[in-house]
Amino acid sequence: MESYLKRRAELYTWMARNSIAVVVLEDTEGRRDPAIRYFSGHPADALLIMTITGHAVLCPWDENLAQKMASVDVIVPYTEFGRHPVTAVAGITERIGVPEHSRIEIPAKTPYPMFLRYVEALFGYDVLCRDNGTDEEIARMRSIKDDDEIARIEKACSITDGIIDLIERQIKSGRIKTETDVALLIDREARAAGAEGTGFDTLAVGPDRSYGIHAFPPYTAAPFPGKGLSILDFGVRYEGYTSDVTLTVASGELSPAQEKQIALVQKAYTAALELYKPGKTTREASLKVDEIFRKAKRSMPHALGHGIGLEPHEGPAIRNREDNAWKFEPGMVVTLEPGVYHSELGGCRLENDILITETGNRVLTKSRIIRI
Amino acid sequence: MESYLKRRAELYTWMARNSIAVVVLEDTEGRRDPAIRYFSGHPADALLIMTITGHAVLCPWDENLAQKMASVDVIVPYTEFGRHPVTAVAGITERIGVPEHSRIEIPAKTPYPMFLRYVEALFGYDVLCRDNGTDEEIARMRSIKDDDEIARIEKACSITDGIIDLIERQIKSGRIKTETDVALLIDREARAAGAEGTGFDTLAVGPDRSYGIHAFPPYTAAPFPGKGLSILDFGVRYEGYTSDVTLTVASGELSPAQEKQIALVQKAYTAALELYKPGKTTREASLKVDEIFRKAKRSMPHALGHGIGLEPHEGPAIRNREDNAWKFEPGMVVTLEPGVYHSELGGCRLENDILITETGNRVLTKSRIIRI
Repeated sequence: MESYLKRRAELYTWMARNSIAVVVLEDTEGRRDPAIRYFSGHPADALLIMTITGHAVLCPWDENLAQKMASVDVIVPYTEFGRHPVTAVAGITERIGVPEHSRIEIPAKTPYPMFLRYVEALFGYDVLCRDNGTDEEIARMRSIKDDDEIARIEKACSITDGIIDLIERQIKSGRIKTETDVALLIDREARAAGAEGTGFDTLAVGPDRSYGIHAFPPYTAAPFPGKGLSILDFGVRYEGYTSDVTLTVASGELSPAQEKQIALVQKAYTAALELYKPGKTTREASLKVDEIFRKAKRSMPHALGHGIGLEPHEGPAIRNREDNAWKFEPGMVVTLEPGVYHSELGGCRLENDILITETGNRVLTKSRIIRI
Repeated sequence: MESYLKRRAELYTWMARNSIAVVVLEDTEGRRDPAIRYFSGHPADALLIMTITGHAVLCPWDENLAQKMASVDVIVPYTEFGRHPVTAVAGITERIGVPEHSRIEIPAKTPYPMFLRYVEALFGYDVLCRDNGTDEEIARMRSIKDDDEIARIEKACSITDGIIDLIERQIKSGRIKTETDVALLIDREARAAGAEGTGFDTLAVGPDRSYGIHAFPPYTAAPFPGKGLSILDFGVRYEGYTSDVTLTVASGELSPAQEKQIALVQKAYTAALELYKPGKTTREASLKVDEIFRKAKRSMPHALGHGIGLEPHEGPAIRNREDNAWKFEPGMVVTLEPGVYHSELGGCRLENDILITETGNRVLTKSRIIRI
């Protein structure tokens, strides 16, 4: 609860510095925004309105859930406004008595037709809807985890590690036979351990499909693991926060080319981990891995990593693009996930979750190459 | 394949009638749009650009997947445009040679800041972004299923019925012990039967939680079914199309008030089904159920139903709001799901999927009240 107050206090300071009277966040089907959970604890559909005078007003779809989980100043039934976000924002703004000509910032994701309705309903105010505004500032705030968040992520990671060990045992004993077996085992064990579930759709792909970075559907009734290189990418969500790991299962005798591929990924992983520390840019780590792969005449079709937290992908970005200006900072929790893929050899990816500390980093998960 | 051509031909006619030169659809994280699958068969992240001259151009994230699943005129690698949708639309528009001043319609969901970038990149064109434009027309088209779609939904429903029977057996034999047991059984059986998975998060709630219309998390390690009224709401997705059913499990001896609640839901269900036919508005069915509940001094906190298809909720809406102008038409596939909820008695909901036919309707699923 104190964490929510602290986070909101930080936002109020930003609002004061930028003369923003009201910030509106919306979490709804098609426009999910876990920032509402970040600032209030409420985990589901709602509007959250925060004012420069230091008030947080929540309009939830499910009032019972909000009474149980939300830590805000006021809960206003959404039904009072026919569950129309624009009507609710206009109504609450009026009740609060926000002075005319104030700046009111609505979500950057607001669709253009809805933006027009906001502008009409908030006549007399200056309506902001920007990519580089408050949403960006919130993304920056969320990229540095506080103690509460780190504790939850550590718990998610520890449940994840337990599941990795279990998977290794069940693969070796032959109990896991299909992609579905392993995916549902993860779901079941996560919930049994007190997690909310998985953090995203589990990806379980045998050697035939492991060269693609996505797969559709993400798991099927096909055998798992198969002879060769299989990939398993999953996360566990604990009190909102998700882990994200990938392990590669190497089954049977591998070809020299496959062994070389595994060694290459491990080499890239080790080299990059050295660069996961304060003072380095995330682009440096990414370019280092590119260089290692390039020397081996290989390349990686995805980013080296990303932040994790209330979303499976959040700031910082860890990639080689020139416009990437993120730096590693203490409190960031990020993935490190080098991978190379080949239509005949199959794919190999190794992914763990890393907490950036004052002096370097701490690896929070124990994903690995499993050989059977 | 022929179905995709037919659907696109219908859209081209609409475009011609409304002088729209180009329609842009986008399916991406945060802005999902299964209309791309509807018009092309491609089931994942992509841009789809359709022109009044009858060309469908797909820019997919995953080219391999598109080669396998998409039925379009041209596949253009998204990487050619750095995977930026605005750049891709501008680039493809130029290559096609769309005449200046033409009307180009972008998705109604386009965020305002992105809308501004489109307007800049498409300088010289008339950029449309409307709630009541092509997206609405596509929703109307999608509300009437063609034969291909009905066949897929029937398959999803038949898999669903098999799973309902299995659940009844496993509940009676005591094999299902928790909410997680039943949720994962559904996931496993769906995939084993060739489905892509579930159509949405399964909701499995025991008597303590069955009075809420949502529940968070949707299933846990808690016992299922418990003594009293438990609710199970799930769907199976087959080749993109999902079913959506709810069954109530009544366990142990019920109180007279609980029995009355079940009878009331069944009465509402039967009365509404009579009104599910061409010529009736969906509002009429909804008001009829409201009336039945009102006479019993009860009320329903959610809509009576909705269309199903590539999304678990799509047109038509079936609810009592005055602005609801939908009519039942042959080819619609919709849910009928009356429910009443009470914090002490628990909740009861009965939901089946209904195909509207020329002469009335056909119930596609066999969900029911299960007594144990």
